[in-house]
Amino acid sequence: MEIPEQDVAHMARAVELAGRGHGSTTPNPVVGCVVLDAAGQVAGEGYHAYAGGPHAEVVALAQAGERARGGTAYVTLEPCDHTGRTGPCSRALLDAGVARVVIAVSDPNPTAAGGAARLRAHGVSVTTGVLTEAAERVNEEWLTFMRLGRSHVTWKFAATLDGRSAAEDGTSKWITSPEARADVHRMRAASDAIVAGIGTVLADDPRLTARPGGEKPARAPVRVVVDPDARTPATARVLDDEAPTLIAVADDVDTGLKADLLRLPRHDAGLDLRALLAELAARQLVSVFLEGGPALAGSFVKEGLVDRVVAYVAPALLGSGKAALGAAGVGTIGELHRLRFDDVTVIGPDVRLTARPVHPSTPRETRPAGPQPGREQ
Amino acid sequence: MEIPEQDVAHMARAVELAGRGHGSTTPNPVVGCVVLDAAGQVAGEGYHAYAGGPHAEVVALAQAGERARGGTAYVTLEPCDHTGRTGPCSRALLDAGVARVVIAVSDPNPTAAGGAARLRAHGVSVTTGVLTEAAERVNEEWLTFMRLGRSHVTWKFAATLDGRSAAEDGTSKWITSPEARADVHRMRAASDAIVAGIGTVLADDPRLTARPGGEKPARAPVRVVVDPDARTPATARVLDDEAPTLIAVADDVDTGLKADLLRLPRHDAGLDLRALLAELAARQLVSVFLEGGPALAGSFVKEGLVDRVVAYVAPALLGSGKAALGAAGVGTIGELHRLRFDDVTVIGPDVRLTARPVHPSTPRETRPAGPQPGREQ
Repeated sequence: MEIPEQDVAHMARAVELAGRGHGSTTPNPVVGCVVLDAAGQVAGEGYHAYAGGPHAEVVALAQAGERARGGTAYVTLEPCDHTGRTGPCSRALLDAGVARVVIAVSDPNPTAAGGAARLRAHGVSVTTGVLTEAAERVNEEWLTFMRLGRSHVTWKFAATLDGRSAAEDGTSKWITSPEARADVHRMRAASDAIVAGIGTVLADDPRLTARPGGEKPARAPVRVVVDPDARTPATARVLDDEAPTLIAVADDVDTGLKADLLRLPRHDAGLDLRALLAELAARQLVSVFLEGGPALAGSFVKEGLVDRVVAYVAPALLGSGKAALGAAGVGTIGELHRLRFDDVTVIGPDVRLTARPVHPSTPRETRPAGPQPGREQ
Repeated sequence: MEIPEQDVAHMARAVELAGRGHGSTTPNPVVGCVVLDAAGQVAGEGYHAYAGGPHAEVVALAQAGERARGGTAYVTLEPCDHTGRTGPCSRALLDAGVARVVIAVSDPNPTAAGGAARLRAHGVSVTTGVLTEAAERVNEEWLTFMRLGRSHVTWKFAATLDGRSAAEDGTSKWITSPEARADVHRMRAASDAIVAGIGTVLADDPRLTARPGGEKPARAPVRVVVDPDARTPATARVLDDEAPTLIAVADDVDTGLKADLLRLPRHDAGLDLRALLAELAARQLVSVFLEGGPALAGSFVKEGLVDRVVAYVAPALLGSGKAALGAAGVGTIGELHRLRFDDVTVIGPDVRLTARPVHPSTPRETRPAGPQPGREQ
């Protein structure tokens, strides 16, 4: 099916609008909407800006007013058909008298889905599948969360050109530039949780907070330490009061650690990471920013649980010291974890490479019964 | 001193022209020249295309003919003042009646230098230092060769995003794409020598030939194996007749290997690499393409003998296996080898990162008496 150029252009704009909500709509999706009047002129634009705020369609329709009648609405995600805080968007579109609705991605949420069907039942012309890839990309965290019942994982690392994150003696300050580190804070702030392993906590005592522009963001990401044997020191900075913290420990460990504990089954030398991400999803933590160290990152990669890799590569060589990535279950070249570069950006003196798996991860086990992520209305 | 915009623009064009000779002028420099007439209109352009061919100035002046009289010549390298195959370019410029000569880089060659002085002595206005950085860059191999009395070294490696060049079992075919490998062949063909360590020869039995576009180039780079203990098997592919080969062995080794041997002092666990590069320079091998393995590359980096790094990074993760770079003399982060990224190019699914040392290597020892690199006329 040939998709009209006009449809693609308006949906591209809707995707751009959707992106503006990135990092602040959790646990909701990001959504963008463009409304045309009957003559094909843009009459309204909107996006979902924050959880609990008005939906994109409602904003765009409000702007269009009477001009929406007989017009077309472009929505990046299938309009909800579910009465939440704001009433179903399918209803709003019908009430506004829109004649045609163009949708990029169908709603995977069983509670909210059905919007397209309701619109069709009321005589609205519905087109689906327009610019689906871009609309999936802008919403990748939420779609992973909904479809796989687990948090979406971005693994970030900073390394030299030869792939090392620390010198032989463990020193690593600073391999990448202030510009790259500022970019990391921006990405942290857009995440719901920041995850690190106990090795990193013991070695570097990181704060694991987001301080974009050097300031505390409105919404502090939850800090999560993967610490099977509960070795996190009571004095660790991750236990300060700058942000909430979860310590993920093995379900068989006996500890007096005063912290919010998440008990999980053991797996290999660590914890069951699938269970961890399901538990985080159950807490409505849609996006996880995984920051190391190499052993934990290797386990995530091995389990197929990394959805996006963000590498900050510094123009420098070490030749020895800590590798950025530890054992990831690859014994021979045929088992290589293949990715695709989606973005290459120069950041100060460094280069940021963004890559995603060629074959997106699929749940290898039945979706656990625990988490019931929902689209909060 | 403010440099007129016109001067910069014409010199930029001369640099562009110079670049066209890249890879085919050895052991001569690349040189570009633009000649303006007295009214400031471009009257002639030229570059040095191959060793033994006419110099850039001669080509540009021939094109300009009588229009050069009273005009300006832009030359990327100080015109030679030395009678070789083609007669001194300083003479040619004087004969053509050029009123002004603009020079980017002074000639470091004691035999050929003096061109600017001779021009000035004959009343020609001479401006130097215009667009020097770009003109040095386009000629970096030859300038390193002349100034340091050793071959210029480009270290190339191909690795995964996590900096590994082979899986745990040693397999490495193929981490990077056919597009990246074709780019490597193009770079090999533009080099005078291709250097690898004995470890790589024993492990992979590489051909170390340049086959740009799948074909044998007009001029085959010399293959050099760094093999202190003369372990190269008589049946190794590097000893076939596709290209000349030098086996660099320790001066104390006793071997019956039927090959062109280069005897060098031992240094650390290997050979004296400074002596190696001086010997290669003495053989008029201006540019060396270093291809591994990690141990040899680490030694070159440690000794400050890598002038350019070209990294082909594949969108893939290994997590274990052979690191791209071995021990390079760094114990703590302050000893990090700092580079600067000069180019980032997407090549097929891969990314090619080109970097150079922040502090270009300087000779740490007195320049050896052996090599007498000269600008062949």
